[in-house]
Amino acid sequence: MPETARSIARRPENRYGNRPTMKDVAARAGVGLKTVSRVVNGEPGVTPDTERRVQEAIDALGFRRNDSARVLRKGRTASIGLVLEDLADPFYGPLSRAVEEVSRAHGSLLINGSSAEDPDREQELALALCARRVDGLVIIPAGDDHRYLEPEIRAGVATVFVDRPAGGIDADVVLSDSFGGARDGVAHLIAHGHRRIGFIGDMPRIHTAAERLRGYRAAMEDAGIPVEATWMSLGVTDPVRVRRAAEEMLSGPDPVTAVFAGNNRVTVTVVRVLAEHARRVALVGFDDFELADLLQPGITVISQDPARMGRTAAERLFQQLDGSLLAPERIELPTRLIARGSGELPPED
Amino acid sequence: MPETARSIARRPENRYGNRPTMKDVAARAGVGLKTVSRVVNGEPGVTPDTERRVQEAIDALGFRRNDSARVLRKGRTASIGLVLEDLADPFYGPLSRAVEEVSRAHGSLLINGSSAEDPDREQELALALCARRVDGLVIIPAGDDHRYLEPEIRAGVATVFVDRPAGGIDADVVLSDSFGGARDGVAHLIAHGHRRIGFIGDMPRIHTAAERLRGYRAAMEDAGIPVEATWMSLGVTDPVRVRRAAEEMLSGPDPVTAVFAGNNRVTVTVVRVLAEHARRVALVGFDDFELADLLQPGITVISQDPARMGRTAAERLFQQLDGSLLAPERIELPTRLIARGSGELPPED
Repeated sequence: MPETARSIARRPENRYGNRPTMKDVAARAGVGLKTVSRVVNGEPGVTPDTERRVQEAIDALGFRRNDSARVLRKGRTASIGLVLEDLADPFYGPLSRAVEEVSRAHGSLLINGSSAEDPDREQELALALCARRVDGLVIIPAGDDHRYLEPEIRAGVATVFVDRPAGGIDADVVLSDSFGGARDGVAHLIAHGHRRIGFIGDMPRIHTAAERLRGYRAAMEDAGIPVEATWMSLGVTDPVRVRRAAEEMLSGPDPVTAVFAGNNRVTVTVVRVLAEHARRVALVGFDDFELADLLQPGITVISQDPARMGRTAAERLFQQLDGSLLAPERIELPTRLIARGSGELPPED
Repeated sequence: MPETARSIARRPENRYGNRPTMKDVAARAGVGLKTVSRVVNGEPGVTPDTERRVQEAIDALGFRRNDSARVLRKGRTASIGLVLEDLADPFYGPLSRAVEEVSRAHGSLLINGSSAEDPDREQELALALCARRVDGLVIIPAGDDHRYLEPEIRAGVATVFVDRPAGGIDADVVLSDSFGGARDGVAHLIAHGHRRIGFIGDMPRIHTAAERLRGYRAAMEDAGIPVEATWMSLGVTDPVRVRRAAEEMLSGPDPVTAVFAGNNRVTVTVVRVLAEHARRVALVGFDDFELADLLQPGITVISQDPARMGRTAAERLFQQLDGSLLAPERIELPTRLIARGSGELPPED
């Protein structure tokens, strides 16, 4: 009595791994291996009747052509990888979607993964994607040493970094003008009469955080305002840490009258803290975010264009793959101040 | 004169695909293939001096062990795939992160992709991940026919659906109680005195949209309120369509006094439309979203738990892989009404 495909698959030893092979299909259809190969690859030289028999065997066994084998033979897959830094940060939504759209337009599949802000996981994920033979990688780096990618780049994997530059290797990078944007935002607060301005940012080892702090310092120096150490707080962007930093700056005998928030994760927590405070405190945040204009007051932001960043990075990647690029470049996109009310509040002492 | 790895990689014909092989390493190190294999796989029987020579050749050539080949031999990779529906919907952020955390705890790499709400792309992506030999798939389906997965499931790929059930196959699914949640939300509006209540939802072919509409109808029927056709609008959730639907319900001689929004994408647009209206209109939205509590008034929502959905689905997937599950199940998680002001506004005629 012949076994069905389902009963075969149900046997414990076949639950994983032992997929039906072309040989199994050939045996079931009563044809040679070459005939099965012809049917699977759509090659001529098979009679309709034989093709039908092979197709029935394929369906019955659940045979599927093994793309891993195809990848090995051809050395090229139509896929690119995207290494994100945090799956839950809304900043990366439009960026990912733009990379996906460009990838799609080039007939390439996009595979994502997240480092969860951990340099080791970034490396593990990037190399795992390379091992799965992606043609290229778009990386939002968590770490600052990317020499681990050198063998891959030498082997022909295209790489573009987004949001933060690569460390230790010369690679394409697409980023926002973090320094200029932060300087503009802080200068905007100074223009509205503030002198005691706090800065709350991400961990200092992160390039964007360091650049935005540098922009803050430059704007303060331009205005001849000496910065006090207690006005600056850098660290993880989780709500507990940011809340404590904001509350410290807002209390004491000489509290800040304005806050510059280093990214959207910081801003939403600061908005929450300020909503609980009686005193009105001005706020400018780096990154726009959904509903920022509908809060009372609306939140003034330094807006980046994450979709354009993703699109630019992905296009650059496919230019590398086309061989139309010569040397790695640093592409810096401008930011834009959007005034909505929170950044135009005067100091309240 | 020997060529360097870099100059070899730079030759156009070698720019992609033709990666160095173990044979190349063996030739460069002046050893046999078996010796290279021993070094690469950390097997004994190689002198320190030979190991060093092989390692130098590996570094110089940029050789990396080919995991595709390893996958072919072993039939099992430590990876699972997640097919998302929309990379830019914040609902999927915590869900993805939860799947990633469970995956990580099981020593498995998570690879994501998005169908961009297109059933064909869902199929293409799911099968591409299978071809790359993921052990299992967590799928937020865009389509309603998943028979294309039958050969993969028979071949041992674990599958769990999230947010919406599979179509045409019997598979695990983890979802929220969309019917009950919507019925509770609409009953809440009725309890606050509303009778003319609008429903704006996603496309009717989407399971959650259909279920939430059913919940709306049930609540209205329970209260003995006949529903007018002009009170219901289902379709894509882009801002243009939702805005038009909301404005139609809010105008005319007999406008609605309350709106039930079918998901967070709908809610944020309705919030925007209501902010422009003089008349106060009550609002309850399905899904919680960031800053909903800080708007004026705060937005009353039917809250789901996307992190718990992701965690439950991923745990179920690994139970399937452990062989500890018998039959597919439907796991429905409860929703929770969070009153914040917008859903407690009385009718204003």
